[in-house]
Amino acid sequence: MGAERALTARLQRFFPAPPDAAVAIGDDAAVVRNRGADSVLCVDPVVEGVHFERGTDLLLVGRKAVNRNLADLAAMGAVPDYLLVSLVLGKGLSEADLERLLRGIRAAARVGGCFVVGGDVAASRGPLVVTVTAVGHLEGRALRRSGAGIGDAIHVTGPLGGSLEGRHLTFRPPLAEGQWLARANVPTTAAMDISDGLLLDLWTMLSASGGLGAELFASAVPITAAARRRAGADPVRALTAALSDGEDHELLFTVRHGNELPRGGPLSSRARRPIGQVVPDQGLWLLERGERRLLRPLGHEHAIARS
Amino acid sequence: MGAERALTARLQRFFPAPPDAAVAIGDDAAVVRNRGADSVLCVDPVVEGVHFERGTDLLLVGRKAVNRNLADLAAMGAVPDYLLVSLVLGKGLSEADLERLLRGIRAAARVGGCFVVGGDVAASRGPLVVTVTAVGHLEGRALRRSGAGIGDAIHVTGPLGGSLEGRHLTFRPPLAEGQWLARANVPTTAAMDISDGLLLDLWTMLSASGGLGAELFASAVPITAAARRRAGADPVRALTAALSDGEDHELLFTVRHGNELPRGGPLSSRARRPIGQVVPDQGLWLLERGERRLLRPLGHEHAIARS
Repeated sequence: MGAERALTARLQRFFPAPPDAAVAIGDDAAVVRNRGADSVLCVDPVVEGVHFERGTDLLLVGRKAVNRNLADLAAMGAVPDYLLVSLVLGKGLSEADLERLLRGIRAAARVGGCFVVGGDVAASRGPLVVTVTAVGHLEGRALRRSGAGIGDAIHVTGPLGGSLEGRHLTFRPPLAEGQWLARANVPTTAAMDISDGLLLDLWTMLSASGGLGAELFASAVPITAAARRRAGADPVRALTAALSDGEDHELLFTVRHGNELPRGGPLSSRARRPIGQVVPDQGLWLLERGERRLLRPLGHEHAIARS
Repeated sequence: MGAERALTARLQRFFPAPPDAAVAIGDDAAVVRNRGADSVLCVDPVVEGVHFERGTDLLLVGRKAVNRNLADLAAMGAVPDYLLVSLVLGKGLSEADLERLLRGIRAAARVGGCFVVGGDVAASRGPLVVTVTAVGHLEGRALRRSGAGIGDAIHVTGPLGGSLEGRHLTFRPPLAEGQWLARANVPTTAAMDISDGLLLDLWTMLSASGGLGAELFASAVPITAAARRRAGADPVRALTAALSDGEDHELLFTVRHGNELPRGGPLSSRARRPIGQVVPDQGLWLLERGERRLLRPLGHEHAIARS
């Protein structure tokens, strides 16, 4: 995952930005001025053996391929409009498999309130590749990952960790949350899809925001039941999962220092409680029982040194 | 290719059209009403071992991946604005290869007058997959493939056949031609990208236009030098290549019966001469030295029975 991340960053640096892009490459999605209206665009491949194991119900794979993109739109505060689907089908895919895949895509599009308007299919000897492109629009402003400021409160929209136990296939993209956070009266300063693990994505956000750091409140980080279960009775392991596992697809967001989130809206009460705050020094610290420990900003790895 | 074609058609039938789509799934690209402006959207994967052989200079592969999509936009009469790039990188791809790939993509985007605004990378054990999504807009009307009428003249923008000799990697998408054909004062009735071979794509166009047929003038079909060379001294083989080889990426278009193309514009003089005409009976016929022979509408196969 580290290598892919570096490659995606490289891909993003390689291309010149158009003169009319509000947000070009380098955020969860691009925002372009499209004939007087802002369009939000993103693409994401889902590959057999990488993003799902062979044998997974392809209904879930189709759903995941759509929802990964909708999570990226959610992170911009965008409303999904259209999807394009490109399939590279490996040998041995049955008629029933293909039907499940298409049904999964269609179902996720329906739930997301958008339409598949184009597609293309190729056959290959390799693994199944499902590449979805999503096009949306903004009703509020665009949520950037680069706007966090010192003293801002750090929040996440839902519990984290243990996604591989199943949630990486069944998560729902936090569209309502993203759209609400993008409203003019909500003091959101930055937002980002959590795909590579909280620490790594928080690190990315803070780097994009000018090289800041954060303190996380250990007891406030919400942990999924799956991560707790997998950790057995080990609270360090459970917290590590929440901090470092990938594919949570919740939103990480920051709220302007000294401001409160308005009442109402789709956020859970848990999502309204900060899990940390932005600090001026670059680095990530965990506050736990009065101690302040430096964490390394690594996703998909054990981030907390065991004492 | 036949199976892929059927699968793409199936993919296209599977999804409900949005209420605001001018042209949904089933043409070269989708046209959607995007916040008051028409956006034209398409996606197309290029797969190692299918669309190019291992060992091909990846500069050409990147170029092809972009230009296949730009040819689809061209067939709608659209102007390219933005591209999204999704890469699935196989093992063993070198740093230099990746650089060539990105350079090819960037160069083709520049020539096409559009910008790469988003991208994502995954690593896999399978073949290299380069999936490009293109977003454009219309300055004229949308060129549909369904508008051909009886008596319309059939044209192509350039010579056909022998694309595998190299042109499938180096073709230039006929954007200027497509945009000109979409002007209000040009009596174009239908247009389509020739990707599966003239006969097969013509058959698709005539089916989409209500089940019509066509007579082709054998002596008027333009044949590439590569197809002639490969055919040696055999004119039947050369014509068969022009009628049936795939990946020409020229435009097939029809001109309203009794109308003439206006002077000026980017069409070559050859492209201004009809290669056939639309007839009421479903079927494709070849007119050659006073004979009228029924052809089967097959791409990538020998379509002309040898006498």
